[in-house]
Amino acid sequence: MNGNYQEALHIIDNVLNQAPDFNEALFSTTFECDQKHGTEYHQRFSDYWKWIQKEDLVVDGAMTDPKGDRGKRPKDQADPDLYLRVKQRQPGGVVISGAKLHQTGMLNSHEILIMPTLTLRSGEEDWAICCSIPTNTKGVRYIYGRQASDTRKLEKFSLDVGNTTFGGQEVMTIFDNVFVPKERIFLDSEIDFSGILVERFASYHRQSYGGCKAGVGDTLIGATALIARMNGVAEASHIRDKIVEMIHLNETIYSCGIACSAMGQQTPAGNYQVNLLLANVCKLNVTRFPFELARLATDVAGGLLGTMPSAADLSDPVAGPYIKKYLAAAPEVDVVDRIKVLRLIENLVAGAGAVGYLIESMHGAGPPTAQRIMISRQTNLEDKIKRVKDLLGIS
Amino acid sequence: MNGNYQEALHIIDNVLNQAPDFNEALFSTTFECDQKHGTEYHQRFSDYWKWIQKEDLVVDGAMTDPKGDRGKRPKDQADPDLYLRVKQRQPGGVVISGAKLHQTGMLNSHEILIMPTLTLRSGEEDWAICCSIPTNTKGVRYIYGRQASDTRKLEKFSLDVGNTTFGGQEVMTIFDNVFVPKERIFLDSEIDFSGILVERFASYHRQSYGGCKAGVGDTLIGATALIARMNGVAEASHIRDKIVEMIHLNETIYSCGIACSAMGQQTPAGNYQVNLLLANVCKLNVTRFPFELARLATDVAGGLLGTMPSAADLSDPVAGPYIKKYLAAAPEVDVVDRIKVLRLIENLVAGAGAVGYLIESMHGAGPPTAQRIMISRQTNLEDKIKRVKDLLGIS
Amino acid sequence: MNGNYQEALHIIDNVLNQAPDFNEALFSTTFECDQKHGTEYHQRFSDYWKWIQKEDLVVDGAMTDPKGDRGKRPKDQADPDLYLRVKQRQPGGVVISGAKLHQTGMLNSHEILIMPTLTLRSGEEDWAICCSIPTNTKGVRYIYGRQASDTRKLEKFSLDVGNTTFGGQEVMTIFDNVFVPKERIFLDSEIDFSGILVERFASYHRQSYGGCKAGVGDTLIGATALIARMNGVAEASHIRDKIVEMIHLNETIYSCGIACSAMGQQTPAGNYQVNLLLANVCKLNVTRFPFELARLATDVAGGLLGTMPSAADLSDPVAGPYIKKYLAAAPEVDVVDRIKVLRLIENLVAGAGAVGYLIESMHGAGPPTAQRIMISRQTNLEDKIKRVKDLLGIS
Amino acid sequence: MNGNYQEALHIIDNVLNQAPDFNEALFSTTFECDQKHGTEYHQRFSDYWKWIQKEDLVVDGAMTDPKGDRGKRPKDQADPDLYLRVKQRQPGGVVISGAKLHQTGMLNSHEILIMPTLTLRSGEEDWAICCSIPTNTKGVRYIYGRQASDTRKLEKFSLDVGNTTFGGQEVMTIFDNVFVPKERIFLDSEIDFSGILVERFASYHRQSYGGCKAGVGDTLIGATALIARMNGVAEASHIRDKIVEMIHLNETIYSCGIACSAMGQQTPAGNYQVNLLLANVCKLNVTRFPFELARLATDVAGGLLGTMPSAADLSDPVAGPYIKKYLAAAPEVDVVDRIKVLRLIENLVAGAGAVGYLIESMHGAGPPTAQRIMISRQTNLEDKIKRVKDLLGIS
Repeated sequence: MNGNYQEALHIIDNVLNQAPDFNEALFSTTFECDQKHGTEYHQRFSDYWKWIQKEDLVVDGAMTDPKGDRGKRPKDQADPDLYLRVKQRQPGGVVISGAKLHQTGMLNSHEILIMPTLTLRSGEEDWAICCSIPTNTKGVRYIYGRQASDTRKLEKFSLDVGNTTFGGQEVMTIFDNVFVPKERIFLDSEIDFSGILVERFASYHRQSYGGCKAGVGDTLIGATALIARMNGVAEASHIRDKIVEMIHLNETIYSCGIACSAMGQQTPAGNYQVNLLLANVCKLNVTRFPFELARLATDVAGGLLGTMPSAADLSDPVAGPYIKKYLAAAPEVDVVDRIKVLRLIENLVAGAGAVGYLIESMHGAGPPTAQRIMISRQTNLEDKIKRVKDLLGIS
Repeated sequence: MNGNYQEALHIIDNVLNQAPDFNEALFSTTFECDQKHGTEYHQRFSDYWKWIQKEDLVVDGAMTDPKGDRGKRPKDQADPDLYLRVKQRQPGGVVISGAKLHQTGMLNSHEILIMPTLTLRSGEEDWAICCSIPTNTKGVRYIYGRQASDTRKLEKFSLDVGNTTFGGQEVMTIFDNVFVPKERIFLDSEIDFSGILVERFASYHRQSYGGCKAGVGDTLIGATALIARMNGVAEASHIRDKIVEMIHLNETIYSCGIACSAMGQQTPAGNYQVNLLLANVCKLNVTRFPFELARLATDVAGGLLGTMPSAADLSDPVAGPYIKKYLAAAPEVDVVDRIKVLRLIENLVAGAGAVGYLIESMHGAGPPTAQRIMISRQTNLEDKIKRVKDLLGIS
Repeated sequence: MNGNYQEALHIIDNVLNQAPDFNEALFSTTFECDQKHGTEYHQRFSDYWKWIQKEDLVVDGAMTDPKGDRGKRPKDQADPDLYLRVKQRQPGGVVISGAKLHQTGMLNSHEILIMPTLTLRSGEEDWAICCSIPTNTKGVRYIYGRQASDTRKLEKFSLDVGNTTFGGQEVMTIFDNVFVPKERIFLDSEIDFSGILVERFASYHRQSYGGCKAGVGDTLIGATALIARMNGVAEASHIRDKIVEMIHLNETIYSCGIACSAMGQQTPAGNYQVNLLLANVCKLNVTRFPFELARLATDVAGGLLGTMPSAADLSDPVAGPYIKKYLAAAPEVDVVDRIKVLRLIENLVAGAGAVGYLIESMHGAGPPTAQRIMISRQTNLEDKIKRVKDLLGIS
Repeated sequence: MNGNYQEALHIIDNVLNQAPDFNEALFSTTFECDQKHGTEYHQRFSDYWKWIQKEDLVVDGAMTDPKGDRGKRPKDQADPDLYLRVKQRQPGGVVISGAKLHQTGMLNSHEILIMPTLTLRSGEEDWAICCSIPTNTKGVRYIYGRQASDTRKLEKFSLDVGNTTFGGQEVMTIFDNVFVPKERIFLDSEIDFSGILVERFASYHRQSYGGCKAGVGDTLIGATALIARMNGVAEASHIRDKIVEMIHLNETIYSCGIACSAMGQQTPAGNYQVNLLLANVCKLNVTRFPFELARLATDVAGGLLGTMPSAADLSDPVAGPYIKKYLAAAPEVDVVDRIKVLRLIENLVAGAGAVGYLIESMHGAGPPTAQRIMISRQTNLEDKIKRVKDLLGIS
């Protein structure tokens, strides 16, 4: 194993602090591309990233193309824009056309870093484009995605929102003939580095879920423990057992995030890369355990999660007093506080928060099948077979 | 085993058609109560139910009390109304006070049939009340429960609703000093029959979930298979495998509904009762498998489930064409149809439909712990131990 | 649904009593074959089976061929005998050659009923043979299969066997040029009925596992509850919970066995056939839940399951007293009784009994993939898709 | 988080190389005991361990007492020896009496290090003893534990053993009035350090399972992949999927072992201690995933796992050729090699190897309930609740 723990600190911090990830992938990939092709992407990207850090800018890493007919390659689609591509080459740069889906946090970013979505082949050079643009560039348009219960944020009474402090948004980003100047291009036509870039970015991203979703999980665990206490059942053995199970599953996700960091390795470019096998193991667990945490929270919270009256009715002079009378728990528990906790849990298991905690846990950084393919590729199965043959004296 | 298959047809039909359930529980319980206490509930209830059938009325069975501080008995609550009770006795009837939570479909019912929520003890006779009233009785009030994404039903564009044909509602029902005439009372003070009534109603209800939730499951399976086909991935081995898994889990639920019916037994009153052990096994599976079906549907459907633009934007002259361009799948697939299917799946896994399919699967007819207690009680564990002792020659 | 409950009694009894299954499959298949091809198998088989019943004989249904290279068809194998076949046709019968693997209970049977192992195609008529012979027919040889801990049955002290009353055996049965007279042939060359016969036999067999493995499960549950009591931990909440979970899983298996019987249908031949979809659902659960029951039993039983001294040492004048001193539990528990229960559990989770309870639960009546294929085929997925389209107004 | 990665290397190595664990626990515990009580255990233990390292000796850490009636404390047992204790104090040392169960590898060790099995209370000072003795000390006796299929090792043909190179043994170790000199005592009567010692040793041990059982898992994965290849089904999608699942679960265990090491902390004594929460999460996964790996291996390997003829029959002039003829797979696969692989898998899922891979995964370093208790204790649940309160503005 690799013993550079001092440096591993950096990538473990990535799990803990959810630092960016595509920048690390680009740092090493541009270095290797330059080595092979004599390009000058590495210095260009390093300068760009130093500027980002100096200016303290937020950058959205945009990878997922719409993909259209999944049975066809980019160039065989009815509409070639279904994978973002270079549509025209001009003296000082390129014009790109296409879209990126599922862009979490795009609307609160200053910059977009565009990457290809899959390994490209010969003849598909126009789709092998990696570049950056400011989010307010001409030709870029954003279409907001809906989330369950999203319009509760627009209602008069905020109680039903569940979480009024934090939230997120996912947008479809359109690139309608957008010009990108040469100095913002970090890969163009080098198809042999498209797959490496995807694989590395995806793996850093899969690592970071070991911190991100464990953090949301902690919130759900806290809310579940709190509602159990408010309901007066916190000491029941089956309630305690379900909360321990939630903690266990959540800490397993976290452990996988730590492990793929601790077992990372230095790249030729000098930065550190997570262990690709374990990062994919991490994310594959993320496609499972949050769903079980949500199920257990639904169990402990009780049926009110799906039947509770609205905040508007709570403020109603006729309905309000009835609600307060009948949603009372133990005398020391404030009814409105109890409603707040239930609305937070609802938010996470069947509301706007479920987009981030459940749907994104499944599909963010790629769906489970993508992780299974990577696990299959990154495992040295032949070595395991060889050891068994040696053990059994099979030639 | 009991061979009355001709009659078992009736209770199997209960699974298939979701016929009422509390009426069967009351039919046998009032019979036994009359036998023991010389009361006259059975004839009264039979007459009532014949009238219900003749008039073809919808009756809501109301059982779940708010319960307040779960560590205390009904009479020890700060507010005795936290369990519905007889507050006053009058010559021709009783006045009741309290509330029933989580009443699915109450607002589309003609009648309410009120039952106690737990086994009552000596000194708690006022809470041992079973009676019926019309839903428009003076003093009864309804407070509508919120569901995820409920206000989408009020929006201009119906596409985002997901399921515009079917839906449900859950209400908190208040009984504010409601008078119930004597001829509508089917149990009053007979604490020794409160537990039997709860147990039987719950078991019929737990049986019926083997039909109800399997039916919703079939819809989710159909929608998942359809979106896979629209996405052009229906033949991928992992997609086929996930759909087979969904079918398997769903048919396991259905099988449990059938089994507890087929193994039912005739009661002294002459009607048929489901097998109590297997009905609870049925429901306990319902607290698990729909969540896994929802997880698998989320996997197959793809990330658009959480990021898709609104129907309003689809109709927008600027945004609309972009959405249609970039959400196109294979050329033969209509984009709006694709959106419809995704919105239906969203409805079931993280929208209004998730209240019925997930939260109600967990808590309807009682939470999983209630089923575990019943499984423990209904199993003849001593017989299993005795057989092992006999096998091993242990005295 | 089909309402012939009176007759369904018969097939439910199949689950409860583990009656034979291939006879039902042959009864209907020979009838349909005669109808189509004008053969005379049905009367011949009916007469044969009446004789079996009159003489009260045990018949082993032999289906599983060795299969050799699984990538090749029967006739393309290096050795054509790897699928049992008609090697020669003679005036009064046929000569068969091949083997049947995994024959449970063959050595305690009077007769063998041979069936093809897969759907055969044109050019593979010689492999489409179904016939019966006495187990002591010339040319038939039996090679006994090993089971974990099998030779404990030969040791001086029987305590370590775990279950000295019941057991089973699995043999490889060789058919070395065995002559079968014409009157014992029930299918010969009719390739179009080979698949139907396999599918039906397999489904009856998969149904019967709902009774068979649930019965073994009951024994394991009883033993687990007994050892918990002996260890003085029967009332611990986590122990009770694990035993409830074992019961729940076991009764789910049983419910699936009941359901596929209750939903069966009459065949044109007049007998009853299980519901093919639900029978496969039943067996697929059997490939999962016994493993979880075994895991839970291992948990409750404690580490002694894998470390307990031998019965020989227990009888040793030096070692014996130490063992009795240190394996004592509560004073009222006999140490040898405690050892007996632990050895029974060991037998079922990691000994000779595990062959029947775990390995056979996985592979008996076909491995899980075979059930998944049948579930896929037997589900009307198009109907589910159509209902969703209707719901959403998709043409 | 703690950044001492350089030193964390040491405890990560513990996972990778399965270094001892109780020595680390004793190193820090004796240090803290001396600080509080003015004892001189730390120097004594350090000297002892330096000698162990210099002489390169194997030391068995002996913790698990028989426990007798689990409802009673050590001093309330019918026989006080059911928990190992100081029976007599003499000028130069103590006489101990009792037993330690489940001692893996005791018979190949030079030294025994005895520790208490639980947190002791006032009045139980005689049970608070930690000391070391050579394995050949007078009064120490060993009673060998049986394992499934153990006597296959004594048979003429070794093929059926499955794994002829490696194996293990578990012994019951009796201490019949054994004298321990003062210089070998590392804790005596300091009840307040008994629980700390148990907790630390257990946590190191639970960490090490992340390496140990993942290593066995790799062997099972290799054997499963090899038998799939020999059977000619390695490329079937469901087979590939099952092997990926095995790898995923196994690497999750490994990740948890790495994570609890990487997140470890320095103790006041100067050595490093694993993260107690994550070490228990690691072990709790070990009580689950190896069972699923065994189930998947059983699925892929096929029914021969439970029905294969003996090696003796393979050598028989009559039976042997039949076995070779009918267990042939693809022509390039040697039949005996195929049998070897199947026997290795049988060894691990239902033979002697299952003691180490399944039963020990459940109970070694404590059963799952012990880990759940530790997870509950080590989690800062109040902090999670507080964060939720802050988020929601609940005071």
